[in-house]
Amino acid sequence: MATGSRDSSRSRSVRRPLPEVSVLRVGHRPGRDPRLTTHVALAARAFGARRMYLHPRDDELAGRIAAVSHRWGGDFAVVPVDDWNSLVRSFPGAVVHLTMYGLPLERSLPRLARHSQLLLVVGGAKVPPELYRRARFNVAVGHQPHSEVAAVAVTLERLLGLPRPARRGDAPQRIVPSARGKRVIGGRARP
Amino acid sequence: MATGSRDSSRSRSVRRPLPEVSVLRVGHRPGRDPRLTTHVALAARAFGARRMYLHPRDDELAGRIAAVSHRWGGDFAVVPVDDWNSLVRSFPGAVVHLTMYGLPLERSLPRLARHSQLLLVVGGAKVPPELYRRARFNVAVGHQPHSEVAAVAVTLERLLGLPRPARRGDAPQRIVPSARGKRVIGGRARP
Repeated sequence: MATGSRDSSRSRSVRRPLPEVSVLRVGHRPGRDPRLTTHVALAARAFGARRMYLHPRDDELAGRIAAVSHRWGGDFAVVPVDDWNSLVRSFPGAVVHLTMYGLPLERSLPRLARHSQLLLVVGGAKVPPELYRRARFNVAVGHQPHSEVAAVAVTLERLLGLPRPARRGDAPQRIVPSARGKRVIGGRARP
Repeated sequence: MATGSRDSSRSRSVRRPLPEVSVLRVGHRPGRDPRLTTHVALAARAFGARRMYLHPRDDELAGRIAAVSHRWGGDFAVVPVDDWNSLVRSFPGAVVHLTMYGLPLERSLPRLARHSQLLLVVGGAKVPPELYRRARFNVAVGHQPHSEVAAVAVTLERLLGLPRPARRGDAPQRIVPSARGKRVIGGRARP
């Protein structure tokens, strides 16, 4: 195991506070199967991002994610963005474009952690080329083709640590971790 | 940053050798949009799994992943499985079912790392209930709904570390990590 001796809770409290992370998903194609963008949003939420900006907007998808937050807690939301370029320019923190062509995540982490606000940008099949110039950092989560879902999840996990089992805010239901089967308190065992 | 002091290369060499990890994806629906299963396969490959077993079989998808391995190196393959139950029963190592209802990954890692072979199982929308009994471990990558792509990627990253930029085997092309733009040696800049 590569990570046995890491004590994330301690290193967190000794060091700086964790950054607030948002995700921007560009190149979404409404009308095509929305599962991939849904998975990006769910991974962003589960691994501790505050919100996901979505271009172009998709109100149905945003509604489904809002229903998940309502059931499972927290105030993560999908925020529609009509002009992603302007969001990237005006973002009050560091813009981090996740791309297999960028610098290794491992090497970039210390520099990312200096910022109190981060915007992780993931594209679809075709990323607008100006993103490479507009981003403060171009960061690769490995240099092999994989998935924007994986890139968002692993980057968040390395920045914020694995999510804890605790109930989120005022969630009507929560899971009781189990070696076998499904245990849910206060709701139905339905994700 | 939660992970600043981790030195994965050192802890690896002092400890036991890394496990060989395979992925089993059940509940794939051929004919529907295959992107989600494609992303599971690409994430499995990029983060160091040796192969992905797929039930039910999907030869078109397996062919697309084989083309990726041909271009980017390594011998990762998608292996069709007609009877997943029998694969799970006969697997010569520990079967790890990734589910939001399981025990926390953080807590499970030391026990997983004792095995030299691991099979990570991820389901689709409906997971066969017997999987919870058949698996040696039911492990949660967070207890919030997210994505089988994210679960596979984060578990592999925690088991094996982040993938290195090195060229894979006899790959005809590789990426040169860059702060800006795309640099590829020996091929076209097309993932």
